[in-house]
Amino acid sequence: MAATALIHSPIQSFLDSLLAKYATYREGEVASYIPELSKADPEAFGICIATIDGYVYEAGASKQAFTIQSISKPFVYGLALDDHGADAMLKKVGVEPSGDAFNAISLHKTTGSPLNPMINTGAIATTGQIIADSPEARIERILEMFARYTGHPMQIDRDVYESEHRTGHRNRAIGHLLRNFDVLIEEPTDVVDTYFRQCAIAVTCADLALMGATLANQGINPVTGTRAIDGKHVENVLSVMASCGMYDFSGGWIYKVGMPAKSGVSGGVLAVLPGQLGIGVYSPRLDAQGNSARAIKVCEELSKAWALHQFNPPYCAHTSRRLAYTAAERSSSRTRHPSQRNLLRDHGARIHVVEMQSNLAFSTTEPIIRDISDRTGEPFAVILDFHHVAAINHVAVGMLVALVTNLRNKGVTVYFTNTQRLPIVREQAVVLTSDPGNVETIFRFQSTDGALECCEDALLEAIHVSLEKVCLDFRNFEITDGLSDEELAHFVELLTHRSHASGDKLITAGEEATNLLLITQGVVGVWLGGVEGNGNRVASFSVGTMVGEMAFLDRARRSADVVAEDEGACAVFEVDDFFRLQQTHPLLHSKILRNIGISLATKLRKANRDVSILSALRD
Amino acid sequence: MAATALIHSPIQSFLDSLLAKYATYREGEVASYIPELSKADPEAFGICIATIDGYVYEAGASKQAFTIQSISKPFVYGLALDDHGADAMLKKVGVEPSGDAFNAISLHKTTGSPLNPMINTGAIATTGQIIADSPEARIERILEMFARYTGHPMQIDRDVYESEHRTGHRNRAIGHLLRNFDVLIEEPTDVVDTYFRQCAIAVTCADLALMGATLANQGINPVTGTRAIDGKHVENVLSVMASCGMYDFSGGWIYKVGMPAKSGVSGGVLAVLPGQLGIGVYSPRLDAQGNSARAIKVCEELSKAWALHQFNPPYCAHTSRRLAYTAAERSSSRTRHPSQRNLLRDHGARIHVVEMQSNLAFSTTEPIIRDISDRTGEPFAVILDFHHVAAINHVAVGMLVALVTNLRNKGVTVYFTNTQRLPIVREQAVVLTSDPGNVETIFRFQSTDGALECCEDALLEAIHVSLEKVCLDFRNFEITDGLSDEELAHFVELLTHRSHASGDKLITAGEEATNLLLITQGVVGVWLGGVEGNGNRVASFSVGTMVGEMAFLDRARRSADVVAEDEGACAVFEVDDFFRLQQTHPLLHSKILRNIGISLATKLRKANRDVSILSALRD
Repeated sequence: MAATALIHSPIQSFLDSLLAKYATYREGEVASYIPELSKADPEAFGICIATIDGYVYEAGASKQAFTIQSISKPFVYGLALDDHGADAMLKKVGVEPSGDAFNAISLHKTTGSPLNPMINTGAIATTGQIIADSPEARIERILEMFARYTGHPMQIDRDVYESEHRTGHRNRAIGHLLRNFDVLIEEPTDVVDTYFRQCAIAVTCADLALMGATLANQGINPVTGTRAIDGKHVENVLSVMASCGMYDFSGGWIYKVGMPAKSGVSGGVLAVLPGQLGIGVYSPRLDAQGNSARAIKVCEELSKAWALHQFNPPYCAHTSRRLAYTAAERSSSRTRHPSQRNLLRDHGARIHVVEMQSNLAFSTTEPIIRDISDRTGEPFAVILDFHHVAAINHVAVGMLVALVTNLRNKGVTVYFTNTQRLPIVREQAVVLTSDPGNVETIFRFQSTDGALECCEDALLEAIHVSLEKVCLDFRNFEITDGLSDEELAHFVELLTHRSHASGDKLITAGEEATNLLLITQGVVGVWLGGVEGNGNRVASFSVGTMVGEMAFLDRARRSADVVAEDEGACAVFEVDDFFRLQQTHPLLHSKILRNIGISLATKLRKANRDVSILSALRD
Repeated sequence: MAATALIHSPIQSFLDSLLAKYATYREGEVASYIPELSKADPEAFGICIATIDGYVYEAGASKQAFTIQSISKPFVYGLALDDHGADAMLKKVGVEPSGDAFNAISLHKTTGSPLNPMINTGAIATTGQIIADSPEARIERILEMFARYTGHPMQIDRDVYESEHRTGHRNRAIGHLLRNFDVLIEEPTDVVDTYFRQCAIAVTCADLALMGATLANQGINPVTGTRAIDGKHVENVLSVMASCGMYDFSGGWIYKVGMPAKSGVSGGVLAVLPGQLGIGVYSPRLDAQGNSARAIKVCEELSKAWALHQFNPPYCAHTSRRLAYTAAERSSSRTRHPSQRNLLRDHGARIHVVEMQSNLAFSTTEPIIRDISDRTGEPFAVILDFHHVAAINHVAVGMLVALVTNLRNKGVTVYFTNTQRLPIVREQAVVLTSDPGNVETIFRFQSTDGALECCEDALLEAIHVSLEKVCLDFRNFEITDGLSDEELAHFVELLTHRSHASGDKLITAGEEATNLLLITQGVVGVWLGGVEGNGNRVASFSVGTMVGEMAFLDRARRSADVVAEDEGACAVFEVDDFFRLQQTHPLLHSKILRNIGISLATKLRKANRDVSILSALRD
């Protein structure tokens, strides 16, 4: 938390209170089967939570180093999965709970392979699978792997390593037995020695939390952005933790705490809430099952207090639909002649916009698929907006691409907008379709507004409206409404006519406003923040509408650039001529001023309707 | 899917293709240990998916009845949990995987209690825990329990029951052994008979999917809305399914499929993706572990194709923040005098609005807590909008209430808006606080706009602006900008003055617009759709502003009701007087018309800014 934080975080407060509460809990004994471990401070106590975006809450001895011991097992198993794949590893080491103690010499009755990689037989067999030319290279790869999870170089605690090296005969026996069954095919003593080193890697409770958050984050360290393990193996690692990670308390742990976890005899516990967070707790006193007694209490309480049990997660349907509307309810930012505006009000319901949000995976995408599949009223176009999608997996992309295919087969146009932040969408869409070139058209528009405008044009053309010839008679312009023939003639005499090429800048932001443009041909776009680079096209105008009328109200400087989007023409009405009319033709002046007011009021009504729809006040 | 659906759902297509693919897969044997089971059609095959909102996708023999067998075990265990609670049940039946076959007579070495409720010893012990006066009442309670999950009355398949009744000696032996260890304290034959009946309950594959969806939905049947099990026991039921549900393939199942599940010897498999969906598959041929061979294949493929593995879920941080802005960026719908507008532009950044969305639980609420805790710039008020929150649990409410407490201690005002659809928010907030009356003030405003308006008023007062006396001189009104002394005097002469009481209707929607109101005292509200009932207060106006100026442009009918919100006064400017000015004082007329245009342009700019912020174009 920043030093200048407004308030103390209640989450930090809860961790602090938990630390104080269990500091007086002194059940259990510090492990002594490796002599050096018995030197640990029995009072040492730390609790850390790392979020999936890399924030680490720390309480107590969060930075005190201890040896990782058995918590190394799932991570080395993950490295072996990256080296060989899950199918090959399943042939070497099983994934069923053994019902035996962690150090039991238990192998499968028929195959001789270890029952799972969380017991010592399976863990030593797994260490032996790490690809390396030498024992030194192997432990180096293991250290590098842990460094990806923690974000810093790792050290081996020499004292603990040497202590186990001197005393670890049972594990050496396991090594030889594995060699006997050809589960290990090299010198077992070297493998067991590497295993001793792997178990003696020094970590802190904050490390454990971040390692957990990395697994929670599909294998990417959320602080460094480094991938620590292939994302597809994360679920395998967490599965063996869930079924076998807490020794003979694994079933009870899942029942009470409800998340994959691994404990070590040095007193660490690492737990992972997939997609959400990592937990690291350190306290050396162990209970009868060999798990840190305080860590079990803390994790049970954290799970209960924060409802972290993975089998009771929050409801997930319909959380992915942010907003849905049609072009009849909210049209694009194109200002159109009233005749087109009315047509779109009548037919715009055939253009559907769905803004998605949050995470798109199977269960959150399914309601969107269902909703669109069932829509009636002859849909003309569907625009799916990804702007608020925080994350999307390949499955959701596949479902949406299948939806697109089915919609296109029915003649419905589909656009995906705002996919730039989510490159997987375009990549997968191209991979998944038989016609990549055709699929590219889905991504034609970055913005929903651009796609909406294009769909409106297409719909108007489909209902036989020629967009070019709506209005060439000045009588049909909004600004001339209510003018007598004589007034109209005088007004038209005041206009000068200009034609322009695509890309011509008609109005420049910052300049003094001296005239108003009446669009007689083509479309012009309005840009804020420049036409290139970071600029945004915020509106557009087509035939029969006026641009820059604010000049007639307050002579302020132009607030935006206006650029021709195609070859076109406009009539220019000078503000000086307008003000002269006040003297020479006051009634005409007043009528024009009123028409400008009506035009502003029309735009204001649309903007207010947009606000109402964007606020989803209709829900 | 509706008959009139636009397109065929790609999800349904996938299930159909899966059914076709595995129809030719004929590994395994139909169970024969209960003679009647061997009569099942080995080709029968159905796949169903039930979503958490109660939609059921069905492929194949989705409506064919079969006996539930071992799939009854977790559900009866759930009923026993509801009867006795988890702590009491843990004393009777453990929750650790046994490593033994389902029908092994395995009991805990020291306690004599069954290792878990998914093996026959544990299941029979569990059936014996269901509270009832008689065996008939007990099976009746069990049938009623299943009816809550399926939404229809349940039947026992007499043939299968009688077949097992004639042959189930091994289970009778278990019953007597349990009696011997006092795990059962009543006549074991009756309990075993009830167990036979429970296993012979007829279900369909669609039933299984919906039962799964009910567990996925925290125990509430998503079709009927009926609670089938206390929500707090759902995680316990799913935990024993996860650790022990698939016989000796439980570890492999979690590894490959990644969700709690239960299989039965009749060929059914039920799987649950918590918070998301339920799966039911039926195909009678069993593999060597006693699980439906096709169901295993189908579930593995479903899990892979749709990425359903629970240990690799989508990313979850920051998915709960829909939008955040300050009153400087987006003010309330109150139209204020320019002097106040400028003050709010300068100081409004101290009023923070955060719109939340999706599910609020620990991990999705934590980023919101962290964000607000760290805000700088002397926050004056924080408004948390729940409008788009799909679901929230008690933990998230607790975190937000703790946040409120800390903010209030720093003198920051907090409002929760749009909480009506989420009664848990108010209920829990009142429970969690030491001062319920004080907490009630958080819920003072339903709408964010109302809360924002109030915070703006309070902020203006806090910076020593008297809201009442901003503007009583007509020279300061927007409509008189640029008028000469003489023009102003003439203008003021045209006005008539009215005072009004709180609640007076000043303008009625639908009436002809004949005047414009200048607010000289108090606040008036603008309502669409009526003032009572379903109407919405869409805007408000305070001293120095004008209401109803559209009348001066097009004499259209009033589009909204305007109601005084307190005792106040306004000056009335008649449209007839305005038009008369066109003849008598054309320059004054033109200035007023221009000022109206400027006022509309100001509102349009605000609306456009609102659209931009609501579209979150700033991201």
